Amino acid sequence: MNAVNLKQLALELNLSVSTVSRALRDSWEISTPTKQRVFDLAKKMNFQPNPYASSLRKHRSRTIAVVLPEVANNFFALAIKGIETVAREKGYHVLIYLTNEEAAEEMAIASSLQSGRVDGVILSLCGSTKETRHLLELQQRNIPLVFFDRVCEELTAPKVMTNDYESGFIATEHLIKAGCRRVAHLTISMSLSISHRRQEGYVDALRRWELPCDPSLVVHCPREEEESYRMIRELFSSSFRPDGVFASVEKLAVQVYHVCRELGLRIPEDVKVISFSNLVTASLLEPSLTTIAQPAYDMGKEAATMLFRRLEKKYIVVPDDQVMLPARLEVRNSTRAV
Amino acid sequence: MNAVNLKQLALELNLSVSTVSRALRDSWEISTPTKQRVFDLAKKMNFQPNPYASSLRKHRSRTIAVVLPEVANNFFALAIKGIETVAREKGYHVLIYLTNEEAAEEMAIASSLQSGRVDGVILSLCGSTKETRHLLELQQRNIPLVFFDRVCEELTAPKVMTNDYESGFIATEHLIKAGCRRVAHLTISMSLSISHRRQEGYVDALRRWELPCDPSLVVHCPREEEESYRMIRELFSSSFRPDGVFASVEKLAVQVYHVCRELGLRIPEDVKVISFSNLVTASLLEPSLTTIAQPAYDMGKEAATMLFRRLEKKYIVVPDDQVMLPARLEVRNSTRAV
Repeated sequence: MNAVNLKQLALELNLSVSTVSRALRDSWEISTPTKQRVFDLAKKMNFQPNPYASSLRKHRSRTIAVVLPEVANNFFALAIKGIETVAREKGYHVLIYLTNEEAAEEMAIASSLQSGRVDGVILSLCGSTKETRHLLELQQRNIPLVFFDRVCEELTAPKVMTNDYESGFIATEHLIKAGCRRVAHLTISMSLSISHRRQEGYVDALRRWELPCDPSLVVHCPREEEESYRMIRELFSSSFRPDGVFASVEKLAVQVYHVCRELGLRIPEDVKVISFSNLVTASLLEPSLTTIAQPAYDMGKEAATMLFRRLEKKYIVVPDDQVMLPARLEVRNSTRAV
Repeated sequence: MNAVNLKQLALELNLSVSTVSRALRDSWEISTPTKQRVFDLAKKMNFQPNPYASSLRKHRSRTIAVVLPEVANNFFALAIKGIETVAREKGYHVLIYLTNEEAAEEMAIASSLQSGRVDGVILSLCGSTKETRHLLELQQRNIPLVFFDRVCEELTAPKVMTNDYESGFIATEHLIKAGCRRVAHLTISMSLSISHRRQEGYVDALRRWELPCDPSLVVHCPREEEESYRMIRELFSSSFRPDGVFASVEKLAVQVYHVCRELGLRIPEDVKVISFSNLVTASLLEPSLTTIAQPAYDMGKEAATMLFRRLEKKYIVVPDDQVMLPARLEVRNSTRAV
């Protein structure tokens, strides 16, 4: 294999290897005349990029990005710890980017990551993402992408998930077995597959127990806290209010507690509450909160492990791995039968 | 002023402006022979870097870094929100770097930030930082640095703080007024100025009320949760245990709650608890937790505002601003007189 390499091109052009390399990637850092010179010679000498060299070059940042909707949430805080544990072993830095649940932010971040400032990306989708072109583009630039929790079902990429459907079913059934007959479901963005799966589990558990599925008991809470609080308050102010509630994220359960205090409703006597949550204070609340706890730390570790597997053996095709880590029901006083 | 500029150097050398610029900064991206050529000509032509051009170049990332010890903490999560609110208005991205309380991590991060991948840095010191050379170096590279909460008192830089001394005094006095006579203080790393100030407030309040200051009641809790829990458990297992405790960070207060449950101690009957905390569930705990709440969101906003003031008027000398935002005592049941 006497192929032309970057070094020969650079020598011939009297440029540094890194300049030639950047010119070939059409980097904005290189002037147009220089790029033209590089392109012309590369064509003339029939230069083919060496994937191994390219891999080395791309691995130089020794940094991975973690793109998240928020950090004020115990699930994400724990997942970050899991990711960092693995990254540290590998000698990598971790950068955290927050989308604040805004698709425009997610797109801007994905676009800035295309420049190669990180070697790989671990992402949990924001609630308003409707299209996935920005994520596809990352993959096309050979920047490995791994999803966790809020995965993108349409995209071929490694994914780390929880058994959201089963957990939604188990949570709802747990309330029914504790005596609830009007079970509400509080959820967030329906753009997210996790919201769908959890809600499907809820609906199927009601069916399984032959309870009616009342659409007015399913509340899609917006991101704005005041508005979300107002909607939950309205739900519980109704004369035909729920006697049980399954919250799909912990901040909604916290709002339910506050609403119940305000309205003088007792938990679990008047309303039973269960929530997806990794709240560190769940067992200290009055009453202690029954949770569906995701293995957040392990999910972070698994996502990072999958990413490094791709970074380290980049040119061996990695299948579309999917790892499903089960959540755990932790029964506490907020769902006690009375 | 017919000074030589980068463009002329580049033209003369048949290199792109960005290559010359990087060569002059001694970037690892440029080959040694190219650097030598650039250095030689720059010397010959008596090239002086143009600070304004350099400023433009450095402002190109439109990204700021926030360097924090951790995110699993409501104070930092809220501060990030404040920082992002300001950054978004300015059209900047925010990157979060976690030091995990390790000085080596903080140094590695500071060193990687010297490359200019961000325009400015907002930092809260990690608990094990002993020297500040890595921070000085950032400043020497003209990368503005703003401290918040865990500030570096020796370094000349803008700082956003809370009235830690007064808050420590108020917290301790609040316990004494509620009837406590053996007040313990749980704290973290004594390398941090905030730990010193809070402890000074504690000591002075005891003196003011003519209570003895028993060193065995001051516990420096390590980062490892199990070890910290063990030390707090030991404190409360003693026959001469405290009847009140002032925790300097919320995770220690959460551990006190767990220890008291385990040992069958009632809050507030047997032990009263107050803590620096921005815990969203403080009012929902059993019993609800009395807190010293820092204005975390406003502190983040203020730190970002100070940083942008420096980024926007970089060559006007900005004084060594210090902003002190007061914390607020929020009395709840954990310190109720009984």
